Amino acid sequence: MLQEIDDSFVPMLQKKIDNLNKPKGALGTLESLALQIGLIQHTLTPSLTNPCHVLFGGDHGIEHEHVSVSPREVTWQQMINFGRGGGGVNMFCRQHGFDLHIVDVGVDHDFGPINHGHIINRKIAHGTRDFLFGPAMTMEEYEQALAVGAEMTDKCHGKGCNVISFGEMGIANTSPSSIWMHLMLDIPLEKCVGAGSGLNDEGIRHKYDVLKSCVDKYLTAMKSQNIYNVKRKDFISAIPYFGGYEMVAAIGAMLRAAEHRMIILVDGFIMTACMLAASKIDKNIMSYAVFGHCGDESGHKMMLDAMGAHPLLSLGLRLGEGTGALCAYPLLQSAVNMLNEMDNFEHANITKYF
Amino acid sequence: MLQEIDDSFVPMLQKKIDNLNKPKGALGTLESLALQIGLIQHTLTPSLTNPCHVLFGGDHGIEHEHVSVSPREVTWQQMINFGRGGGGVNMFCRQHGFDLHIVDVGVDHDFGPINHGHIINRKIAHGTRDFLFGPAMTMEEYEQALAVGAEMTDKCHGKGCNVISFGEMGIANTSPSSIWMHLMLDIPLEKCVGAGSGLNDEGIRHKYDVLKSCVDKYLTAMKSQNIYNVKRKDFISAIPYFGGYEMVAAIGAMLRAAEHRMIILVDGFIMTACMLAASKIDKNIMSYAVFGHCGDESGHKMMLDAMGAHPLLSLGLRLGEGTGALCAYPLLQSAVNMLNEMDNFEHANITKYF
Repeated sequence: MLQEIDDSFVPMLQKKIDNLNKPKGALGTLESLALQIGLIQHTLTPSLTNPCHVLFGGDHGIEHEHVSVSPREVTWQQMINFGRGGGGVNMFCRQHGFDLHIVDVGVDHDFGPINHGHIINRKIAHGTRDFLFGPAMTMEEYEQALAVGAEMTDKCHGKGCNVISFGEMGIANTSPSSIWMHLMLDIPLEKCVGAGSGLNDEGIRHKYDVLKSCVDKYLTAMKSQNIYNVKRKDFISAIPYFGGYEMVAAIGAMLRAAEHRMIILVDGFIMTACMLAASKIDKNIMSYAVFGHCGDESGHKMMLDAMGAHPLLSLGLRLGEGTGALCAYPLLQSAVNMLNEMDNFEHANITKYF
Repeated sequence: MLQEIDDSFVPMLQKKIDNLNKPKGALGTLESLALQIGLIQHTLTPSLTNPCHVLFGGDHGIEHEHVSVSPREVTWQQMINFGRGGGGVNMFCRQHGFDLHIVDVGVDHDFGPINHGHIINRKIAHGTRDFLFGPAMTMEEYEQALAVGAEMTDKCHGKGCNVISFGEMGIANTSPSSIWMHLMLDIPLEKCVGAGSGLNDEGIRHKYDVLKSCVDKYLTAMKSQNIYNVKRKDFISAIPYFGGYEMVAAIGAMLRAAEHRMIILVDGFIMTACMLAASKIDKNIMSYAVFGHCGDESGHKMMLDAMGAHPLLSLGLRLGEGTGALCAYPLLQSAVNMLNEMDNFEHANITKYF
């Protein structure tokens, strides 16, 4: 069980924020962000050190059911592109000083050792199974993927990182995300299914029909305790049943990050679904989560609202890779700077505003 | 008259953006921002150089009517604080590498030469006149304030700056902003008047009553061509009649920045009102404006919508000083990086998404 945040520290932190030389609350979201970061680090003078971004890649059996407009091969092609520095995630990592770790957890491609040394090999399988016909992964693979994520977080933490963000590359991974949202938040499936990287209306209808069948099959099997031989509440069994290796790795990484009391920067639709799943495993993780961006995927805003999450940005991004989280990073720096650098009323000799 | 942006360059720029290795439109607002910046600079490889922030300070006669919760002395106290580096604007300038210029255009205080060398003295008067009883400034003072702004922009431009943002310090300056919004956008005055730095409901009602009297008086005088001896359409005469010296200086600075084809980063309620006023003087200025932030002041969103402006951030800031514009700057850098650093489909050997 993750450590609960110590709320008794709130008044002292809030007092410091309120006494900075600005009208009370005038820095809006930056003030609540400063409060959250101060609480996570339990200090009046927080800092952000060695930010890291971990991008997990994996393929999905459900891709065979034509639920995505992009073909499966884009996963490995993009992984190579990231390894080479040419992706969206690379430029944002460079811009904001993030160390980037690219991890193959289950991509359907053999990356040779040559030229691709930047891709860390933790491949569990060449993509998950098609969950139209049964679980996407075994319990063993699930534990293995969680462990890969935890290992990556440990690696970053060991290098002095206290703020970490995650991204993914996995064609078709909006499908499991939509299903988790539907099951874990009890939102009608049709409101959870969107265009992904660019489906048209007909494509979205087909995607919905496929996912509906998958969910029905899962619920029937769950009733008879026919999945993993355990009947788990809160649809925790839906994590390995529908998840991608890259998604489960992200969940493992998030849980370990909260254990280390690191700030977790959450990206778009898929990473939000992973944080949702992580919160079903341990609800205390939410105190460590900073939601970076509300994306364009239909349903993302609804998922965030249902989780009580307030994203920092809303730029209509729908690239994934962690780009939305990375774009929000300067705001975390601003919040921290505010606590550390802004003068207070007494010292600045300014008539205190009301 | 400002140069119109050359729209014939749009297709070439859009083609470059669409061929970057991401689903079309997947970088949302960053793509439209990249298009705008590319158009302003008329290049496929834009750059941001020597960013500058100019903060204009001035006091307002209307402050005597108790339209603000903060007392007038806060203007000069904060100017000294900015000169010393302890304000919100200072920390954001440091964070994002902006040169900060602090200009006294009409603060009701004599800053001695000692300790305040950081404040540029271009004082026109010790605050404007109270526009409950007539025009806030003369036409001569108006021209003078416009010239101060233009001078500051020239100074920045001369040092290689091609992206400039503006901020203000002037207790009571939401009042003229609300009136400009009302007159220039034909929005009912009650929807334009808000809490400023923290009025309660009673205070807002009083502020509305005062401003209503001021507007009535102005309209009556204008009908009889009794203001500045000219009947100007589009309520351009409302700029000197209600404006603060710091606001008119910002308008002059914005107009000159567009002449130099610089990117103008627009801050919150007051700077948006200044851009609105500038657009009444020359509508082409809007092509150069990037709106940084939609603030908490009631009416700001409505003003932006009526101007067809899409702010990058919405963080509930209501500090002024230019803080909202500065917080948005990393997104401009991201947009520029996207155009310059992101690989394209052909070169990266990636199956083009639909």
